[in-house]
Amino acid sequence: MSDLLIKNCSVLQLNNDGTSAEILTDQDILVRGNLIEAVQPTALADESHFCTCIDANRMLAMPGLINTHAHVPMVLFRGLAEDVPLERWLNDCIWPIERHLTPEDVYWGMLLGAIEMIEAGVTAVADHYFYMDSAAKAVEKAGIRANLGWAMFGSQGDSIIQQTSAFVRQWQGAAHSRIRTMMAPHAPYTCDDDFLRATVRAAEKLGVGIHIHVSETKEQTQASLQSRGLTPIQVLERTGVLGVPTILAHACGTLPNDIEILARYRTGIAHAPKTYLKLGMDIAPVTEFRQAGMPVGLATDGAASNNTLDLWESLRLLAMMQKFRLGTPEVLPVAEALYIATTESAWVFDRSQQLGKLASGYLADFILIDLERVHHQPNHNIPANLVYSLRPEDVQTVIIDGQIVMDSRQILTLDKTEVIGQVRSNLNRLVT
Amino acid sequence: MSDLLIKNCSVLQLNNDGTSAEILTDQDILVRGNLIEAVQPTALADESHFCTCIDANRMLAMPGLINTHAHVPMVLFRGLAEDVPLERWLNDCIWPIERHLTPEDVYWGMLLGAIEMIEAGVTAVADHYFYMDSAAKAVEKAGIRANLGWAMFGSQGDSIIQQTSAFVRQWQGAAHSRIRTMMAPHAPYTCDDDFLRATVRAAEKLGVGIHIHVSETKEQTQASLQSRGLTPIQVLERTGVLGVPTILAHACGTLPNDIEILARYRTGIAHAPKTYLKLGMDIAPVTEFRQAGMPVGLATDGAASNNTLDLWESLRLLAMMQKFRLGTPEVLPVAEALYIATTESAWVFDRSQQLGKLASGYLADFILIDLERVHHQPNHNIPANLVYSLRPEDVQTVIIDGQIVMDSRQILTLDKTEVIGQVRSNLNRLVT
Repeated sequence: MSDLLIKNCSVLQLNNDGTSAEILTDQDILVRGNLIEAVQPTALADESHFCTCIDANRMLAMPGLINTHAHVPMVLFRGLAEDVPLERWLNDCIWPIERHLTPEDVYWGMLLGAIEMIEAGVTAVADHYFYMDSAAKAVEKAGIRANLGWAMFGSQGDSIIQQTSAFVRQWQGAAHSRIRTMMAPHAPYTCDDDFLRATVRAAEKLGVGIHIHVSETKEQTQASLQSRGLTPIQVLERTGVLGVPTILAHACGTLPNDIEILARYRTGIAHAPKTYLKLGMDIAPVTEFRQAGMPVGLATDGAASNNTLDLWESLRLLAMMQKFRLGTPEVLPVAEALYIATTESAWVFDRSQQLGKLASGYLADFILIDLERVHHQPNHNIPANLVYSLRPEDVQTVIIDGQIVMDSRQILTLDKTEVIGQVRSNLNRLVT
Repeated sequence: MSDLLIKNCSVLQLNNDGTSAEILTDQDILVRGNLIEAVQPTALADESHFCTCIDANRMLAMPGLINTHAHVPMVLFRGLAEDVPLERWLNDCIWPIERHLTPEDVYWGMLLGAIEMIEAGVTAVADHYFYMDSAAKAVEKAGIRANLGWAMFGSQGDSIIQQTSAFVRQWQGAAHSRIRTMMAPHAPYTCDDDFLRATVRAAEKLGVGIHIHVSETKEQTQASLQSRGLTPIQVLERTGVLGVPTILAHACGTLPNDIEILARYRTGIAHAPKTYLKLGMDIAPVTEFRQAGMPVGLATDGAASNNTLDLWESLRLLAMMQKFRLGTPEVLPVAEALYIATTESAWVFDRSQQLGKLASGYLADFILIDLERVHHQPNHNIPANLVYSLRPEDVQTVIIDGQIVMDSRQILTLDKTEVIGQVRSNLNRLVT
């Protein structure tokens, strides 16, 4: 007896190189435990053999979105630092507040962000922040999937590597393997080479990867070249960071030579375009990355710069900004954008064999989308609607690890009112 | 006895030069007929003196958004022409389909678009399309406000000017003045000088303005300079177009000299950034326009290029793309973005004395927004949330011309199911 039957839906189907996107109609999805057992034409399955059956008529099923770089608990700071440059954003707005952060704040912030993600059909997140044991407890409770990295600065010395290694040992594989971990040094400009090398040794010993910011702007790349004759990417190669599985966030300031290096390692890049626009930064050369064989993953970054965790907006901006940057609408067509949102994001998230596809044997992380709403009509081109018309509210039902986490817009794992209430009552202490 | 009392809401308040945005709490809005009678502290008004009373506790009231350039019935073509250049987009995709268009298609397309706009809190639209008598009937029925221009190409000769002049005479001021009209030549590259001059004479005689596309790309400007030594803006000045009230759509390819010309006339520009990004065009110099004293209005363009009529997305993109273009987050701060969305859009729409402000004596076109949803939490900065976090679904109630058009997400003027059904049944003939 299987556990869950999703009946009579359409299914988004991408081919293996991301050049075409098709919609299969009249499909059933069979789930056993936390895996997709089969995707097959409707009416082959006997409903009485399933514990739970969802009628998904007029819905489209697709893999849940994967946020490959965020600082989820920063939803607590949404709107606190607007219209200021990156340096002031960090030094005057964000870092002073973060000094007051407690583990409890991170717990409730992570839950608030989890609700926002679930409501938008985001089923997994690679998060990079502080007090990640608290974040892990929130992930466990919310029912989402996460790759958690406890942020480290070189100035914190060897003890922070020991401390975050302990976090990795404790949480790797927790919550029925929904939680994985990475080591998370902040960036080459805040972590010296010895610190990065020590991090690599720890990651290798623990059998995990490294999640790090790199080359956020061209100015960072130039500053690194001037001070030591190496780009930040070259620093990552020299210190061995590129030798372990990595999530590289941003890479907006990469040079052509950097791309050659990254291509040798087939390194994935997490791309958070709303932050780049809002902070007046550069747009990463997504098209060049992909031409060099590197996967690109969707990301929001934190809500202190993005203001939301809406990954559909990141998807639209990713595609549109490459068209704008290269001056032609022909790059990043719809099918490729959806391939990035699913297959490539799963690759960057370091679970390409288990996530990003709605197919037998993959983890049952998928969403049901209502295609009937006015802003999708008259539904000529469903793949284009997914990229350019979809709103988070169109996502009706969210399944993660085989569990129904949101059913017809009702979140089943968390009490929204309680979470909002706790966040607000904690705020007086946090924001003075 | 007044007609409508909106009780106990917050109200967005912008100062007169758009440099600050504040939120007044505990306010009542009194509506008499189609006008705002007063905005005053809660509890001064006696509920028994009003026909209808809406409790708007935890809601924010602000002016309805104004779409200053669209082709609303093109929602019929949503998703039909993706990832192709502007020339092919027009010649191979859009124009061939438009040849099959009937007045009935335009009527139902306008209704479909009206639903999408109302659901997103868009209360007025400057529309530029064909069979605008059918569009006008749809506007009348939907309860929205519109400035309608019947598109003309120079190749259609003098008879189209006569025909659209008759449309102007018939519909100007209709639907209790919710409908106004403009003459609508397509663009300087599709209308020769004599045709533009004849249009200006007709507009002057009719007492209406002109709505026209101009300098959509730098290539258009260069082509005009090469073929005749004048920019498209110079052509508009020479032919007298700038001498009547105008809505100029796009102006992405304007040169510094063009801005000097436009500034003399204080011409408004309709700005539709999603189209510019999606088609790999240039971004108009919004900051320079505004520094020269010209107002800028939000626009979506048609859903064949934008894919939606979501003006909140246009607002975000407008602000973000100026930050990106100029390489600094300090331009187009939140208060200015909201000023563009309200006061300046009303100016471009040619109703600056009657729209764009929630204040006594202005037309009662406003919306109530739910601020309590998760993606706004913890609500540190409501103006920033309006620009960077808001989704159309947050708009709960829409009032246009003193009438409640949407109440708690229920559209009162139209039958959504009927409209979608009609659109779909007409499609077989239209799209082959």
